[in-house]
Amino acid sequence: VLVQVTKEVLLHALYPVLKAVAAHSPLPILSGIHIQADADGLVLTASNSSMAITCRIPQETGILTLQQPGRIVVTARYFYEIVRKLNPGVITLMGEDSFLLTLQSGGTQIRLCGMDPVEFPLPPSVEGQPVFTFRVPNGVLKSAIKQVATVAATSENRPVLTGVCLEYKEASLCLTATDGVRFATCTLRVARVMSSEAVTVVVPGKNLQEAVKLLAGEDGVTEITLTANRIRLQTPTVQIQSAVIDGRYPVLHSIIPRDYRCEIMVDTLILVNAFEIATILASADIVRIVVNAGKMELLSHIAEIGDSVDEIPLQEMNGEDFQLSVNGKYILDILRCLDTESVRMQFTGPLSPLVIQPVNDLTTSLFLITPVRTSH
Amino acid sequence: VLVQVTKEVLLHALYPVLKAVAAHSPLPILSGIHIQADADGLVLTASNSSMAITCRIPQETGILTLQQPGRIVVTARYFYEIVRKLNPGVITLMGEDSFLLTLQSGGTQIRLCGMDPVEFPLPPSVEGQPVFTFRVPNGVLKSAIKQVATVAATSENRPVLTGVCLEYKEASLCLTATDGVRFATCTLRVARVMSSEAVTVVVPGKNLQEAVKLLAGEDGVTEITLTANRIRLQTPTVQIQSAVIDGRYPVLHSIIPRDYRCEIMVDTLILVNAFEIATILASADIVRIVVNAGKMELLSHIAEIGDSVDEIPLQEMNGEDFQLSVNGKYILDILRCLDTESVRMQFTGPLSPLVIQPVNDLTTSLFLITPVRTSH
Repeated sequence: VLVQVTKEVLLHALYPVLKAVAAHSPLPILSGIHIQADADGLVLTASNSSMAITCRIPQETGILTLQQPGRIVVTARYFYEIVRKLNPGVITLMGEDSFLLTLQSGGTQIRLCGMDPVEFPLPPSVEGQPVFTFRVPNGVLKSAIKQVATVAATSENRPVLTGVCLEYKEASLCLTATDGVRFATCTLRVARVMSSEAVTVVVPGKNLQEAVKLLAGEDGVTEITLTANRIRLQTPTVQIQSAVIDGRYPVLHSIIPRDYRCEIMVDTLILVNAFEIATILASADIVRIVVNAGKMELLSHIAEIGDSVDEIPLQEMNGEDFQLSVNGKYILDILRCLDTESVRMQFTGPLSPLVIQPVNDLTTSLFLITPVRTSH
Repeated sequence: VLVQVTKEVLLHALYPVLKAVAAHSPLPILSGIHIQADADGLVLTASNSSMAITCRIPQETGILTLQQPGRIVVTARYFYEIVRKLNPGVITLMGEDSFLLTLQSGGTQIRLCGMDPVEFPLPPSVEGQPVFTFRVPNGVLKSAIKQVATVAATSENRPVLTGVCLEYKEASLCLTATDGVRFATCTLRVARVMSSEAVTVVVPGKNLQEAVKLLAGEDGVTEITLTANRIRLQTPTVQIQSAVIDGRYPVLHSIIPRDYRCEIMVDTLILVNAFEIATILASADIVRIVVNAGKMELLSHIAEIGDSVDEIPLQEMNGEDFQLSVNGKYILDILRCLDTESVRMQFTGPLSPLVIQPVNDLTTSLFLITPVRTSH
């Protein structure tokens, strides 16, 4: 291998890949970065047991010289630290064999021991399997994943609930997640589907959240490929592959209440700010919502510390007065994901879930949050 | 108490004071902020066992209404979180008695339980004691403290070494610190001394480092007052008081070598960058310095990971070739504090300290670092 590439281009390609480096793996090879030079350019890959990220530097944009193809695996942490600290400008990467990479920049020469590239778990090709491929604009995809993945369970008690369920059916993709207290669902229309059959996969929520951060500008388009056991997100330069979670995802859409006893509409930013203040002085994060005589109040308190009352103007109200308590932090996670100016809330009963919906969203999303029983 | 003040002014005064709030004190009162409204304005004070910080909001600049004097102590963490989250604009602080503070802003009303202000350890007045007062430009003071405090010991094995020794004598102030491996000293001329006798105090290094962050722009002047058991730094709005460390500070100036065998001058930024790279691949942080035939090289390695060689151009060299090993992180702490473009290093022998001096500094500072013995 002999490649010359500028520090800036190399770093830019390294950042996304680092997200998939296994932090504390017993397998040393998983702490590595697979660097491959071929006729098309330089390809960096990292892979942990659940996710693989590949970033390509095309020959025409970033590579100054590419004399020989080849590949090597070096420890990601050291490689990144070194590239980051080298002076701006051209870095020469040289590998006489697969087990020694030399980096040269100005008066600095660094040699890094390599690992056997044959041992590196490159992401499998999806070709040859029944696949479903469709394309989604980044803006819509980011918003949908952000909203739904935030309520996926973090505890491993029921592993399937740490995932987001992706269900493709009739030209639309439905994302669903729940942690037992909260439920989120979002449906988006998708275009150019290469297969028309229905398919359902459950993808680890935290892999989707990492993937969202790597999707470039809102204007781009991401190609999503689903197979029976993998999901692949492909952008022009970055490819993210995630394993799926085995196990049956519970059927949850029947829990969405059909009727409400009161519906209100509130400014999203005002509501987020009010819950942030209320949660500061909220014992066990419990915040009481009181809707009464056309206005909404949030109440909270911590014994011997203090209490807080916040009045929020209602944009609309239809139905009866109500009050119930919710976990302030749980509802904030949801409200902070909303991209719309206003939010709609439906009270469906003192012990039934509160329904939260963004108003005028590009997607069709809906959240439920189960009230906290209190002695009020 | 009834005070009206804008959120922005209140937050600006709160930030510096928070540095002195005791994080994990068994005494609840030390987790509080003492808020005092008097004829001159609003005064916020926090105090831990070693340091007290006071910030004044003068009546003319920040207070919109001040109807009644009074004082109250509330938990700093909650008070800060609440003020930070309140909407921009006017906040009304009301206290009917010393044990309940009400904050009102727009539709938000928050009540915080107070603690007995009589129990709060307000910093003692320095009047009536023999004091030494002098004024130092902020730029010079910041640079001197930053340089010297960085080598104060962090381990409590010998408590006196966690301090910086401040010695006033003959119109100059000498700061000294050491951790056993490194030694730093800096002398600055001081003006307008109110007493001409000599005085020596040892001030906790970390208090001085916090104090430096609170000194505003380089152009200002700080008034320093030393008494037998306290130091006070006074700027127009912030006052920092620190306790001193008991115990005799060792006499160290005799360890500064008088002769050298080689003296080199190097660009500071290039040297910092080279040590940063060398330290990445440095086993036990050991970096070898080789000065040979008019050039300098830094060498380091970690077994089974890799090695690094970095060549650094010399601006000047007088004397014989040399090589020795140092702790790369220890020398970086020193080099990063230097404000000058060039740095001078003197080799005084293979087992003697390396002398490091900034070139053309406003202050007169000097560092020593003891070499690491290696099997080279």
